[in-house]
Amino acid sequence: MNFMEKEKPIGVFDSGIGVLTVVKRIASALPNESIVYFGDTARVPYGSKSNETVIEYAMQDAQFLMKKGVKAIVVACNTASSVALDELKAAFTVPVIGVIEPGAAMAAKLSTGGRIGVIGTRATVNNHAYAKKILGLNSKLEVFETACPLFVPLAEEGWHEHPSAYIIAQEYLHELQMKDIDTLVLGCTHYPILAKVIQKVMGDKVKLIDSGIATSEVVRSELERIGLVSNSNALGRMSFYVSDIPSTFQKIARIFLEREIPDVQKILVGS
Amino acid sequence: MNFMEKEKPIGVFDSGIGVLTVVKRIASALPNESIVYFGDTARVPYGSKSNETVIEYAMQDAQFLMKKGVKAIVVACNTASSVALDELKAAFTVPVIGVIEPGAAMAAKLSTGGRIGVIGTRATVNNHAYAKKILGLNSKLEVFETACPLFVPLAEEGWHEHPSAYIIAQEYLHELQMKDIDTLVLGCTHYPILAKVIQKVMGDKVKLIDSGIATSEVVRSELERIGLVSNSNALGRMSFYVSDIPSTFQKIARIFLEREIPDVQKILVGS
Repeated sequence: MNFMEKEKPIGVFDSGIGVLTVVKRIASALPNESIVYFGDTARVPYGSKSNETVIEYAMQDAQFLMKKGVKAIVVACNTASSVALDELKAAFTVPVIGVIEPGAAMAAKLSTGGRIGVIGTRATVNNHAYAKKILGLNSKLEVFETACPLFVPLAEEGWHEHPSAYIIAQEYLHELQMKDIDTLVLGCTHYPILAKVIQKVMGDKVKLIDSGIATSEVVRSELERIGLVSNSNALGRMSFYVSDIPSTFQKIARIFLEREIPDVQKILVGS
Repeated sequence: MNFMEKEKPIGVFDSGIGVLTVVKRIASALPNESIVYFGDTARVPYGSKSNETVIEYAMQDAQFLMKKGVKAIVVACNTASSVALDELKAAFTVPVIGVIEPGAAMAAKLSTGGRIGVIGTRATVNNHAYAKKILGLNSKLEVFETACPLFVPLAEEGWHEHPSAYIIAQEYLHELQMKDIDTLVLGCTHYPILAKVIQKVMGDKVKLIDSGIATSEVVRSELERIGLVSNSNALGRMSFYVSDIPSTFQKIARIFLEREIPDVQKILVGS
């Protein structure tokens, strides 16, 4: 029984395709684990919806993954992580891992100067999701938050190296440049796509925190804790499900995952 | 009875706040008409959803307006206009007016060189909604379509005069510049916000078509045809309803409408 349990996949969901940066990090940190990915592309974005609606959607997303027999659930969506994590943990017996706590913990741990910047969607910044966690870990740290709404459409357009990306990043990050931060949390799953331009604007001395990397380390330690690390030596399988297929899905997925993705299946969720 | 019928408001709906550019045009062309506006901001965007879903949502939006006693319905959403107009016309007894036919007719009428560009969201461009209507009116015209996905978030961010807007517009419009067009349809209700930068990139010889202006002329002639033009000499009332209130709603609304807007009420639609 336990043998089969170990070979079950890890489930990962998000409101959209930003999740793919997290999938990439998990696949790279845990190459023998199989992953079932669900992107709720029909109901994206979650960031502008009420908490009740986000909780309802997140429960449906997680239920879909549970039906696929997952051994753990990664909530690779900052909005759902900040709003629905307690409800998800209460509803399911498998470990439920959000992206905010791991990202906040890594920032608190790696900050050398105690001045941490956080960039995210307007919803994440208005909720102070990262700031609360970081200050909860160490109240002496200083946290500066800025919303960067155009970063998501820029990443989805595949313009991570376009001249406009640099000008937009300069505009958004200007305030943080003045704050003399030493660490910057990429508080949105889309932002690692823009890491190069963000690093260029902020300078080499600022350490960028990719929540996907932090999260895959937590996934690993959770699987170790419950004794469900895969015994396989082969590369894990990847299955992709979405609630709607945007016309540019394959193109964007290639940019996000940095590899070709297998067939994507469209499924009906909620309704 | 007919006297009261004339003083009923015009209903206008859209998936988001782009509708406000159309409301502005109707209010300016028909200042004595009252307007009830509904923005389905909780379920925006429609452009990435299936036709069945867009039809279902559009019917709910129109039903909400009918309950407010409107004498005509303007579908100020390009996606809903191209997908749901027939269903809406069949379902309701009041005139239902979309934005695509008026915009296409104005472009066909005003084009001097017979070469018309159309810019819109990816959904509108992929449906060839404007091209079909324009070529249906005059098959000798040539139509060139380009999607400009970043224009909507740019307009919603209020960055219509930001240097990045010019760089992004240059990138998107480059192909159309090569086509020697004489007329350019702004095929998305957000785009009039960016008219200045679009005109600058395309040059003064290219005539921009604002579907909102074209649509308000059709609304006027429809009301005349059915004898329901308001007799009032006072400024019409404006009522705003949305399905969710984004934190930046007032700021964006000010940019779009170019005036302060009264109280906005949040209502529940569908569900």
